[in-house]
Formats: sequence, structure tokens, C-alpha cells
Amino acid sequence: MIEMHGFWRSSAAYRVRIALNLKGLPFRETFVDLDAGEQNRPDYRAINPQGTVPTVLFEDGTRLTQSLAILEYLEETHPEPPLLPADPAGRARVRGIAGLFATDHHPVIVPRVRRYLRARFGVDPDGEGDWVRHWLEEGLRIGEARLSAEPETGRFCHGDTPTIADLCLASHMAASRVFGADLSVGPTLLAIERNFLELDAFDSAQPSKQKR
Amino acid sequence: MIEMHGFWRSSAAYRVRIALNLKGLPFRETFVDLDAGEQNRPDYRAINPQGTVPTVLFEDGTRLTQSLAILEYLEETHPEPPLLPADPAGRARVRGIAGLFATDHHPVIVPRVRRYLRARFGVDPDGEGDWVRHWLEEGLRIGEARLSAEPETGRFCHGDTPTIADLCLASHMAASRVFGADLSVGPTLLAIERNFLELDAFDSAQPSKQKR
Repeated sequence: MIEMHGFWRSSAAYRVRIALNLKGLPFRETFVDLDAGEQNRPDYRAINPQGTVPTVLFEDGTRLTQSLAILEYLEETHPEPPLLPADPAGRARVRGIAGLFATDHHPVIVPRVRRYLRARFGVDPDGEGDWVRHWLEEGLRIGEARLSAEPETGRFCHGDTPTIADLCLASHMAASRVFGADLSVGPTLLAIERNFLELDAFDSAQPSKQKR
Repeated sequence: MIEMHGFWRSSAAYRVRIALNLKGLPFRETFVDLDAGEQNRPDYRAINPQGTVPTVLFEDGTRLTQSLAILEYLEETHPEPPLLPADPAGRARVRGIAGLFATDHHPVIVPRVRRYLRARFGVDPDGEGDWVRHWLEEGLRIGEARLSAEPETGRFCHGDTPTIADLCLASHMAASRVFGADLSVGPTLLAIERNFLELDAFDSAQPSKQKR
């Protein structure tokens, strides 16, 4: 069975859980407790020198890190159901929207960045909250501007079936709720979220629904 | 001809220039002066609501943003020479290394993030320099740990031909030089950089070699 070192709250692990569910691939997730610093333990660093989650171990011994690379790998090795459209321009649009959430905004708010903000600049909890909400809300605004304007948007980010863009939107929305970002700037995003959370593959993968 | 809205100094535009050169695709780049705030001009926001560079316009009218999505599009539409290996695990390794540089570390140091550090926390130029070097050096250390240890590393990040990972390493190295990060932590990275800068596709795309 596929083994994932993840964490209930991790945005990146959430994306991978949804993809595994959509592809119908059974997996077992063990938590690397990021709050307790377990990502810095030598035994975890030995399998992932970067200390990020998730790390996914496949049955053939392939070990992968980086959620977006893992999503592309799942798409190549288990093409059904597809999480990318068939046409190159559509695939680029989906990857671009995924990147808007997962590449441009998520890395700016991860725990290691907030830790350095506190350590180097003495940022207090209020400042840290502002920081996180600022980038989450920027992502929401830009995502809303694109998804509300572009004709390819359907029930989901790209047409009427879920794609990698929806997985990245899902993790952005979950983080936005946790940190109290203003979701009202994203009515289109909220509508898409309602649609994908109707699917058990998304719903059961939510951070709030993981055993802790 | 392919038209790119880029900027001489932009890491993301640099990656795309290298890919276009390697694929033998002629292009014309016009600069969006990020220092002068041209990315906020309504005419630029009209074609890219996010105001990032690059935006690439292809001859068939396809308009793309997000450098990693553009690199994947180029690979799908112009497969030769390949910038990803043929096997899924190799492709995932290349995308993971690319993500380490372009996803985990680059977004944390871009101008909009440094602007908010100054505006919200009153960070001074010394603090801003520390911030940028901290994340560049973390990327160098983790990249060095992976690339020096993994058997797939060759003259380039993955074997002996350039891949998307090298494009992202190139932009990370260029930024590291500009900001005075300590490159001595990455001897393997420096050796790979020497190898790829022997190729005109990389060399001529360097930020320092663009007309300003």
C-alpha cells in the first residue's frame, strides 16, 4: 500500500490525499507532527532532507517529495480519472491556477517562514496573523479575478470535472478558514468549493476530518 | 513570433528564456519594469491580473502566465529536445528539484513580499538583505544535500542533459549572486552551474546579459 508521511493540517498533504482518493489508490498516512518539530528528527530527515511533508512511498520503492511533483507523477502513472485536461493550453491554465495558490502564496505562509519572521524581526502573534491573512487574501483576490472572468471556469476551476487546480484551491480555502482570512472576496471560489466538497474524495481528505 | 512580457532581472523570465532557447524557439521579450511599478499599470493587469512576469503570448493566441506552467506547456508542444526525462520517477525527481528552488524558496523573496515586510513590519535594508539571503542559502543547502547525495545527479541536475531542474537552479544561482548569498555551501551546485553555463542557451539568457 502507498505510505504517506503527512500531517493532518498540511496543505500539501491535503492536496495529495485528494488526488489519491480521486484516483482510487488506497494509502496509509502517518503524521509528522510539525508542531512538535518531528520534521527535524534525524530519522525523518534521512528520508526527506528538506523536512517537508508530504513524503510519499510507493509500492515499487519510489519515494517522492513536493506535492505538485507528486500530483504530476500520479497523473502519469494512474491517468484515470484525469486531473489535467487533454489540451496543452488547458493543461497550462490548470497548472497556472494551481501555481497561483500552491506556488505563489502557500510557500510564503508555511511554519518555517513564520518562525523566521518571529526570530529575525520579533514579529508578534498579531503581526503573524496579518502576514498570513495578507497572502491568503491576495491569493483569494487574484484567484477570484481569474476564475470569475475566464470562460473555461465551470462547476470546477476548469470545466465540470476536478483538476489539480481544484486540489490547490481546496488547500488554499482550508488554510483561509483556519487563519480567518476574509472569504467574501471570493464568491466564485466559494461556489467552486461547495461543488468539490460534495465529492467524498475532497470531503474526507479535509484537514478538519483527519484523526488527530 | 512568440512575445514575452518579462524583465531582465526576473528569475521566472530567466527560466523561460532558457527553455525557449533550448527548444530553438525565436521570441521577443519586452520588459515590464518591476522597479518602476509597471506591473501595476492597467494595460498590463488587463493581460495578467496578477501583475507577475513573465506573460507569454504564442502565435496561436494562447496567453500563459506562471513560469512552471509555461515550461510544461513548452515541453508538451515542442518536445525536442526534452527537458524532462522519460520515466515518471525521473520526471518527478526533476519536478521536485525544480520545485525546491522555484516553489519553496523563490516566492518568499520576490519584490511584493519584501515590500510588505517593509510596510507592515518596518524592516530595514539590512533586515531585508538577511531575509533574502536566509531563504536563498536554505535553498542552496537543501539543493546541495539532495544533488550531492542522489545517484541520478550527473553533469546536470538529472543525468547529463539539461532539464527543468537546471533552469530553476540557474535562476536560484543568479539570484544568490545578486543578493550576495554564500555560494560556498553548494559545491555540487556550482559545478552543475559551470556545466550548464557552457551552453549558449543558458549563458545568453542570464539576467546580467540582458539589454537594459
